[in-house]
Amino acid sequence: MNSNSDTRQGKAGTAGGRAAQSLSGPTFEQIRKFWHPLSVENALAPYQIASSLAYVQVLMHMGELSQDEAARLTEGLRQIYRELLSGTSFLNDNDPDIYTGLARRLSELCGETAGCISRRSSVESLALDVRLWVRDRLVSAFRGLIELRQVLLRLAAEHEEVLMPGHAHLQPTRPQLLSLFFMGSESRLHRDFNRMEELFERLNMLPKSIGGDAQLEREFDYDVLSRLLKFQGTTHVAFAGDGDYLLEFASLAAITGVHLSQLASELLIWSSHEFGYVRLPRAFVFREQRFPARRNPEILEALRSRSALFAGRLAELLSIMKGIPLGYSHEANEALPAVLDVVTNLDFVLELSSVVLPALVFDTKKMSDAAQLDLENRGNVIDYLIEKDFPQEKATAIVEHLLTYTKERRKHLADLAPAEWQEFSPAFETDIYKFLTSYDRQEPYAGASLAEAFRSATKQLDEDNQFANCFSVDVFALVTGED
Amino acid sequence: MNSNSDTRQGKAGTAGGRAAQSLSGPTFEQIRKFWHPLSVENALAPYQIASSLAYVQVLMHMGELSQDEAARLTEGLRQIYRELLSGTSFLNDNDPDIYTGLARRLSELCGETAGCISRRSSVESLALDVRLWVRDRLVSAFRGLIELRQVLLRLAAEHEEVLMPGHAHLQPTRPQLLSLFFMGSESRLHRDFNRMEELFERLNMLPKSIGGDAQLEREFDYDVLSRLLKFQGTTHVAFAGDGDYLLEFASLAAITGVHLSQLASELLIWSSHEFGYVRLPRAFVFREQRFPARRNPEILEALRSRSALFAGRLAELLSIMKGIPLGYSHEANEALPAVLDVVTNLDFVLELSSVVLPALVFDTKKMSDAAQLDLENRGNVIDYLIEKDFPQEKATAIVEHLLTYTKERRKHLADLAPAEWQEFSPAFETDIYKFLTSYDRQEPYAGASLAEAFRSATKQLDEDNQFANCFSVDVFALVTGED
Amino acid sequence: MNSNSDTRQGKAGTAGGRAAQSLSGPTFEQIRKFWHPLSVENALAPYQIASSLAYVQVLMHMGELSQDEAARLTEGLRQIYRELLSGTSFLNDNDPDIYTGLARRLSELCGETAGCISRRSSVESLALDVRLWVRDRLVSAFRGLIELRQVLLRLAAEHEEVLMPGHAHLQPTRPQLLSLFFMGSESRLHRDFNRMEELFERLNMLPKSIGGDAQLEREFDYDVLSRLLKFQGTTHVAFAGDGDYLLEFASLAAITGVHLSQLASELLIWSSHEFGYVRLPRAFVFREQRFPARRNPEILEALRSRSALFAGRLAELLSIMKGIPLGYSHEANEALPAVLDVVTNLDFVLELSSVVLPALVFDTKKMSDAAQLDLENRGNVIDYLIEKDFPQEKATAIVEHLLTYTKERRKHLADLAPAEWQEFSPAFETDIYKFLTSYDRQEPYAGASLAEAFRSATKQLDEDNQFANCFSVDVFALVTGED
Amino acid sequence: MNSNSDTRQGKAGTAGGRAAQSLSGPTFEQIRKFWHPLSVENALAPYQIASSLAYVQVLMHMGELSQDEAARLTEGLRQIYRELLSGTSFLNDNDPDIYTGLARRLSELCGETAGCISRRSSVESLALDVRLWVRDRLVSAFRGLIELRQVLLRLAAEHEEVLMPGHAHLQPTRPQLLSLFFMGSESRLHRDFNRMEELFERLNMLPKSIGGDAQLEREFDYDVLSRLLKFQGTTHVAFAGDGDYLLEFASLAAITGVHLSQLASELLIWSSHEFGYVRLPRAFVFREQRFPARRNPEILEALRSRSALFAGRLAELLSIMKGIPLGYSHEANEALPAVLDVVTNLDFVLELSSVVLPALVFDTKKMSDAAQLDLENRGNVIDYLIEKDFPQEKATAIVEHLLTYTKERRKHLADLAPAEWQEFSPAFETDIYKFLTSYDRQEPYAGASLAEAFRSATKQLDEDNQFANCFSVDVFALVTGED
Repeated sequence: MNSNSDTRQGKAGTAGGRAAQSLSGPTFEQIRKFWHPLSVENALAPYQIASSLAYVQVLMHMGELSQDEAARLTEGLRQIYRELLSGTSFLNDNDPDIYTGLARRLSELCGETAGCISRRSSVESLALDVRLWVRDRLVSAFRGLIELRQVLLRLAAEHEEVLMPGHAHLQPTRPQLLSLFFMGSESRLHRDFNRMEELFERLNMLPKSIGGDAQLEREFDYDVLSRLLKFQGTTHVAFAGDGDYLLEFASLAAITGVHLSQLASELLIWSSHEFGYVRLPRAFVFREQRFPARRNPEILEALRSRSALFAGRLAELLSIMKGIPLGYSHEANEALPAVLDVVTNLDFVLELSSVVLPALVFDTKKMSDAAQLDLENRGNVIDYLIEKDFPQEKATAIVEHLLTYTKERRKHLADLAPAEWQEFSPAFETDIYKFLTSYDRQEPYAGASLAEAFRSATKQLDEDNQFANCFSVDVFALVTGED
Repeated sequence: MNSNSDTRQGKAGTAGGRAAQSLSGPTFEQIRKFWHPLSVENALAPYQIASSLAYVQVLMHMGELSQDEAARLTEGLRQIYRELLSGTSFLNDNDPDIYTGLARRLSELCGETAGCISRRSSVESLALDVRLWVRDRLVSAFRGLIELRQVLLRLAAEHEEVLMPGHAHLQPTRPQLLSLFFMGSESRLHRDFNRMEELFERLNMLPKSIGGDAQLEREFDYDVLSRLLKFQGTTHVAFAGDGDYLLEFASLAAITGVHLSQLASELLIWSSHEFGYVRLPRAFVFREQRFPARRNPEILEALRSRSALFAGRLAELLSIMKGIPLGYSHEANEALPAVLDVVTNLDFVLELSSVVLPALVFDTKKMSDAAQLDLENRGNVIDYLIEKDFPQEKATAIVEHLLTYTKERRKHLADLAPAEWQEFSPAFETDIYKFLTSYDRQEPYAGASLAEAFRSATKQLDEDNQFANCFSVDVFALVTGED
Repeated sequence: MNSNSDTRQGKAGTAGGRAAQSLSGPTFEQIRKFWHPLSVENALAPYQIASSLAYVQVLMHMGELSQDEAARLTEGLRQIYRELLSGTSFLNDNDPDIYTGLARRLSELCGETAGCISRRSSVESLALDVRLWVRDRLVSAFRGLIELRQVLLRLAAEHEEVLMPGHAHLQPTRPQLLSLFFMGSESRLHRDFNRMEELFERLNMLPKSIGGDAQLEREFDYDVLSRLLKFQGTTHVAFAGDGDYLLEFASLAAITGVHLSQLASELLIWSSHEFGYVRLPRAFVFREQRFPARRNPEILEALRSRSALFAGRLAELLSIMKGIPLGYSHEANEALPAVLDVVTNLDFVLELSSVVLPALVFDTKKMSDAAQLDLENRGNVIDYLIEKDFPQEKATAIVEHLLTYTKERRKHLADLAPAEWQEFSPAFETDIYKFLTSYDRQEPYAGASLAEAFRSATKQLDEDNQFANCFSVDVFALVTGED
Repeated sequence: MNSNSDTRQGKAGTAGGRAAQSLSGPTFEQIRKFWHPLSVENALAPYQIASSLAYVQVLMHMGELSQDEAARLTEGLRQIYRELLSGTSFLNDNDPDIYTGLARRLSELCGETAGCISRRSSVESLALDVRLWVRDRLVSAFRGLIELRQVLLRLAAEHEEVLMPGHAHLQPTRPQLLSLFFMGSESRLHRDFNRMEELFERLNMLPKSIGGDAQLEREFDYDVLSRLLKFQGTTHVAFAGDGDYLLEFASLAAITGVHLSQLASELLIWSSHEFGYVRLPRAFVFREQRFPARRNPEILEALRSRSALFAGRLAELLSIMKGIPLGYSHEANEALPAVLDVVTNLDFVLELSSVVLPALVFDTKKMSDAAQLDLENRGNVIDYLIEKDFPQEKATAIVEHLLTYTKERRKHLADLAPAEWQEFSPAFETDIYKFLTSYDRQEPYAGASLAEAFRSATKQLDEDNQFANCFSVDVFALVTGED
């Protein structure tokens, strides 16, 4: 075995050499875009500047930086932030990641003192900056949800008296109020808001590592850092990289995605010529090259489809996190592109829904006309006749006459007397009633509970709006100095 | 076209006939097991009896049933419940679903009056019974989480002074406390508990349909029903089938699944011969036929693996719900097998974790011995020598001597003087320090924050325990008459 | 540290004792159902008997068993198989798994000689039996796919001349042939068959471990085993547990699931009252308790939904397999419930599709009537008028008149002269043409390519049918002795 | 109702106006990046130019363009292609999609004649260009797989005699050959190649729409188009947007992802200090800011993790496609970002694996030293002693002595005589043998089958290499005029 492993040493050297060569195959830049994709780095960069600036202030507070040094570093970071806003990233192609890049740029501006920001644990820094970023995106989702809920309640109010055919299994059931469709969608989004609010409370805490370096621990003032970065308080963590709030966020986005997908799917069916309950005005349409005049409800199709993106990304995140060791690993970075995709698309679907819904034109006349037919029993009577050997076409014609007859008399098929049935066909015997669905028809359908639900929803929306508005987490005020 | 469609009628008749025949191909029972799987029906059956019993009491309260009738129905339902407990389901093979089955059985016992329980909307009934069931499973998850958190805090206390090698990327970093591993896991499960508590508040409300039948609405007393079924109150719903709380539940189970998967994965690596930090006693082991003596950590592998089940089921649920119309559809049933799999497996992974953790034997001596070596710099020095053309084997031998030397002196490699390096090899020049990681070594690692975190975790666990214990949602007291 | 670890030992003992107690909490049976679920064991049991029987014959062939011994064991296994067929499993509650169970039962019947079947590597045995099982399920999928493709081609032939409104984005486009709908679905399933055929070639090879025990290797006759179990040949494997063919199978099932989901979704929309293109006869329907007469297209909804099950299970399998070590692990067992769910549901969706499609009644008259309207331009003209400030209702009325007018003259809106437009409203100026889609209308739409495609599909289906029929993999002939 | 719907009309007008305004909220560019993301458009653009150029040639062949016109358009398209190669896209911000953009740019260069390329059906064009693109990416995957398989076979050859401890459940089993690890991984990738080859055959056919426009059908020469674009032939399609080959591609990528994830995971564990079987040279390492000297196996962690990306994207694709209507819809576009992510990452993981594997340094001495210990029985003997009330530390010490003793004598624990056991402790009674695993130890483990498997794998790899090399699908030769 010895000779074997001696030989191996020689090969090992060669292998090492080969590796170095091979690594120069794909360039550093190519590899980096898979390690630390630019899109993620751009999303994190401003938060990194803000947290660095707060870190500088804590160091000054702790006496590790003089006021002068802190002021110089603060001004340096502010300049880097201004450059970022004007489109110039502090990163250059040789920076392996944003932390190295920011330290390099800051030292160009402020000299050696800049080194202090590199003393932060890179694990904790990344965890903090991701948290700041996601917190902001959550506030953005609050706004999107509130705007959309306002749209839905407005639509409910505008259509409060409109009856339309009810559907279960896409088959006719009793007529229902169009406004219920909006009310129900709003209450779903209200619960989505509620869930995100609770997530917000959970993530709006500054993580404070336990069991670390005793000396560091004594001195580092997490409370000041927390106040500067506008957290509600601090929370102990043993695993600095813990990212369950990211999994929770992706789950909540996926649930909202499902809600909007169902809403869009319903509207797509309603917008077909055959249903004809809703119309997309042309203002709304993306023109196709070949059929310039065609109205394509692509926005609705995108809303129907995007819930799959959230679900897929969530599955990815759960699988990334599955079974990895508890110590820090690169998986914390691997998760970020999926998180970025989630937050970006959540904004997108909320905004687009708020745009598309008010633009739709509901054909309330067609709806209420159809609601006056006893569609629920239509199929049953056709079946009855077909089972008595009527051809389908003839059976259908007889039933259409029956429906016209009952509509004129504001009756249901179940209300007709045996003699009335006989007028339409002698085939109708008294067993016909066994095949009919009957119920006490109540008018109006909108009882007290609907009005009460509307009032309650409106009140809740106002409260949620206040929560979202009052709440200030603008960490950039710290950077711009407006704080 | 006419002749074509006439001909089609003929065919239609045939087709209908064929369909009936074909449908008798797979038997009704075979089909039913895909529609309404027995496992789901068994899970729901007791809740269905409880809610039916409460419904009977509401009808009596509303004057729609006499006290006598209500008493007879109540006794009938109690008998059915007792039969169920003793292993006899009320279902027979011809019942298309549990609602039909219960009504049939009750009418066998109580005659025609039993028909009143069929007047409930089947959509609302199913929604209610699923909610009662999941509420109970959530309480079960509370218990499982609390027990496991207790185990983890106990383990943290038992090992509070044990140092072990730290790992990042599975590579050596600074030594860390073994207890942090338990503390960190407990804090994850604390957050999981917290999330489930919030879900509980959300789902523990009786849904109250709006926009339905005005007369029904006036009369049906949801408040009494809510009190009987121990809900916290009522909440308006426009879509009776709304199941976002099921998606939320599956998400939370998936997050917990990930936490346990990581814990198990770490322990699996520790239990390898090469790590040797933990040992599974034989009491613990499932024997294999061929190697009767082998200890297989299959329980840990199951825990590592099952998070995939939660994630897959969640993906299924999200995809089932994507893009379906808003009206009621069969998808509400399609979701139930996945939900059942989630709740069953959540119980399983929590219970097994509570069993497996206390049974493990941590080799704290091996851990602390290894923690005294400067492993963090070991690889760096080997690299240093190899890059100076030492064969790997020789480089490794030199570094092992160095580690023994530093361990005896309780030093780090970075603490050695240039002369000391030279004693081990003349190849060590002063640039060696550039390749070493150095930091101020603090003893003990367990600072004030750890003790504070432990106290805070213990206090929180007590509160959560009280929440879970105090909270009574035993709807079956109603059935057994112990209420 | 010593005292600490000594103390730990004491605790370890206690912990071990506690563990044994705790493990007796959940009973062995409860745990086993999560380890080796009964459903999986039942699925594998017959294949296990068949492969054991073949193994016995190989041992005889190799001279390790006498002819008498082999005959006795063969008869024992056949008896166990007969018992299994008559509903009595060889497993009892104390068997930890099916391999132990079979060996125990066989030794009850044949005494000590039975021990030889336990000499098989349990890893290889499980791998082999799973392969035999999945091979059979694949043959079952072949049959299901062929039957369904026959149904689709028959429907295409029956409706070859029927025109219906075309849809893109669910909006009207040019009329299309109903038969295309069936042809296109058949060609999808043809490709699905094709993929499964290739998988079959890949999995129909007996795995032959390399690098194992040299002596065993010399002697064990894989070729005889392969012939007995009707494999096409042997293939070398280094990792006995390799299960990529299971991932492939689940992927192919998921693709088929998507195809059937889209088919079902289209038919669900067509079966709505508003579309009215297809009718479900009552023979077909599952009755609901409350609305006994309602026709619910639940079968179609199940078909739409089940693709989510395949996708979720596939995601589970991929996540189970992600990142596990290469050596054998329990994950090979963890995968089996998902695989069982996939094969069972694949059979189900194929069979149900074959039943539901011929039972549907297509309203070809309604389709062809609608196909004669220029629906494609309908919305454009309504938009035109609304943008000239017509109220929607009036705009719609005008356009309905226009459509009647053009239908009677078998024209498109784009074919009308300016004067004709003016008759309907002076608002129509010559710019109306800019808003219309026009194309050369060709009759008939069914060109040569359709007939050619039909012939080609029929021919391919015949070939596939022969492939599936000719191919015999009935390993049970070996067991029943009919071979 | 009338007054209501009249009022609604008024609102409709307003709503339309509002919509137009709202849509001007998010700019067209912002919306477009979600509709047609730039990354997807950049990936498709060259294929679109190639297919347009082929289309021009077909039109010339059919006599619809003169030779002059065709030459001018060809030169125009070539210029656009050269611009694209030099970094200038033909798209500008106002182009709604790449088809409109290319037509516009071509008409700028060639005037009105350019309009002919817009006559292609946009559905068919997109389907064709996606197919051309994915075909190319598949060829790229072929190359990546072959290179990686070469690396693995080379490693197997280099380590053919190295023994290492075997593992099952990460616990010790019999020693095994290191080379099996490479052989087994190669055979997985061989099957992956095989699957992709079959997909290639399936997708390398030009789709030919059936049932379309009869006149067009008669004249359009698909055979010429197929030849120009280097397809193997044509295939009939009824649904032009069919994308099951994309689902298949994503499935195959996910399977390969799992294979590489397991490989990486194993190596990560081996590279830990505790295992120490493999070392990453520093040449390989990405430096961290704070610990410049730390070697992080991030590449391996990325390989372990990325299989989650494939699985998540596959789940997304399957969910996007679930239950959408059969007519063309926007979902065909919605799928493309996920497909792009899959193809890009597949290239990435294959390339990185080929780089990382040869760079690793296997510590074959440590492996073979460990292989000589009877680790398999080690835990059993420790258990034996602990159950006789030995403290763990003492039990472990005794067993370490036993292992040294047996290693020196090249024996297994099961080979020791009772007297030998007694020398180590009187606690060892004769029942010790019941607790030991024993087997005939064969040397060498590498039997004939390994050599045969190696030869067979090498031969197969050569054939696959030839397949991949010979096969030319360079559609751009057409564009560059080198064809």
